[in-house]
Amino acid sequence: MKLQNIKIVMVGTTHPGNIGAAARAMNNMCLSHLTLVDPQCPIGETAYARASGANAILDNRETCSELVPAIADCSLVIATSARRRSLPWPELSPAELADKLVSMDDSSRVALVFGREHSGLLNEEIQLCNQMVCIPTNPEFSSLNLASAIQVLCYEIFSRQNDTPPTGKQPDAHDLPAPSSEVEGYFEHLEKVLLSIGYLDQEQPGMIMQRLRRLYLRSELTRNEINILRGMLTAIEKVKH
Amino acid sequence: MKLQNIKIVMVGTTHPGNIGAAARAMNNMCLSHLTLVDPQCPIGETAYARASGANAILDNRETCSELVPAIADCSLVIATSARRRSLPWPELSPAELADKLVSMDDSSRVALVFGREHSGLLNEEIQLCNQMVCIPTNPEFSSLNLASAIQVLCYEIFSRQNDTPPTGKQPDAHDLPAPSSEVEGYFEHLEKVLLSIGYLDQEQPGMIMQRLRRLYLRSELTRNEINILRGMLTAIEKVKH
Repeated sequence: MKLQNIKIVMVGTTHPGNIGAAARAMNNMCLSHLTLVDPQCPIGETAYARASGANAILDNRETCSELVPAIADCSLVIATSARRRSLPWPELSPAELADKLVSMDDSSRVALVFGREHSGLLNEEIQLCNQMVCIPTNPEFSSLNLASAIQVLCYEIFSRQNDTPPTGKQPDAHDLPAPSSEVEGYFEHLEKVLLSIGYLDQEQPGMIMQRLRRLYLRSELTRNEINILRGMLTAIEKVKH
Repeated sequence: MKLQNIKIVMVGTTHPGNIGAAARAMNNMCLSHLTLVDPQCPIGETAYARASGANAILDNRETCSELVPAIADCSLVIATSARRRSLPWPELSPAELADKLVSMDDSSRVALVFGREHSGLLNEEIQLCNQMVCIPTNPEFSSLNLASAIQVLCYEIFSRQNDTPPTGKQPDAHDLPAPSSEVEGYFEHLEKVLLSIGYLDQEQPGMIMQRLRRLYLRSELTRNEINILRGMLTAIEKVKH
């Protein structure tokens, strides 16, 4: 895949220095697309000083108030996290992530999502992601600086990209992972139908939907598969009426 | 080799924040031995703030006025550099360095030597080193932040060292991929229900079922997921009758 199709998404960042340092780290590793979701600080002198010349990345940043629109065009959304979750999400090492990206199609768009300095990503944010990447660290001192985590992942991706020759064949677009917006459209449809047939409890749709999300996000649904799955939902709705 | 036998040597550093950030990066990756050669800044509040709790590494740092005594006990001394030299030094990638260290003896002592923020290492300093490691970067914007370079190398070394399979918590059997017989049981149930609601053509169930098989087989369904998916099928059958 193309490095310029990978976006770094920083959610709720509070220190402008981390945003500047992230821009520098990205530029060092040939990434250029920075998206800030609900930033909690101004992007001014401090950020530009730490960017150390990577000004274009800061100038061209995209800003969103929420994660959903930030990743809408991405067919692979990767959450980064140090914390272990009660409901485990499929987890990659940085090297496995880099291998995965190398093998992806040139037109694919990917988001790497980084959470808040102190509290990381919310569970509902993680549940928008296909997979999670976890940087191995000292279990006694595991909290990486935010920009350092971005540096490590960008480095892994760049260095892997760099030692792999590009391959040729392009699969049909409908057999590639669908963008997040289409996958979310499927989840909405699925929840509606499962409520209507009484499989989900109106009061408590949560845990079952979480597990279904995890299953389908892990699978990286293609457009063709979403069409089939939504066709099934429509057939169920017809039987019901 | 032992991670505690690797020392990080920072030569002529001018920004205390970089020293603090280096201590944090080291601690994240289980390295603890920091040596400052001729530091050009005080190690005070700024350094400790950026160390973010890795105080012991700063407290126990060693300080030398020159590189020679700092590396005297080391059997392998590695210079780090972004700049290409007129006199090429034997050069390793970070991954090659990590491989090399993994295979070394437990009693070996190693120094990784990092130069000044703006001018790197002097030629006479490089000539004290056995080899050079070079972090691959964007040729148009190659200057890594000093602490970021330390982060990347410590990460490579730690993660290579760490590659031995993790021990400890086993996931619940119901969260492991289910045996084929159970997955096939699900496919039979799915086909039956899709035929009954008229989504599959009695004559031609093939292509759609093939695609659904591919999707779910790729996902390596767990027992819990099969229970949820079959629960949905049962709910559809109830609506139908």
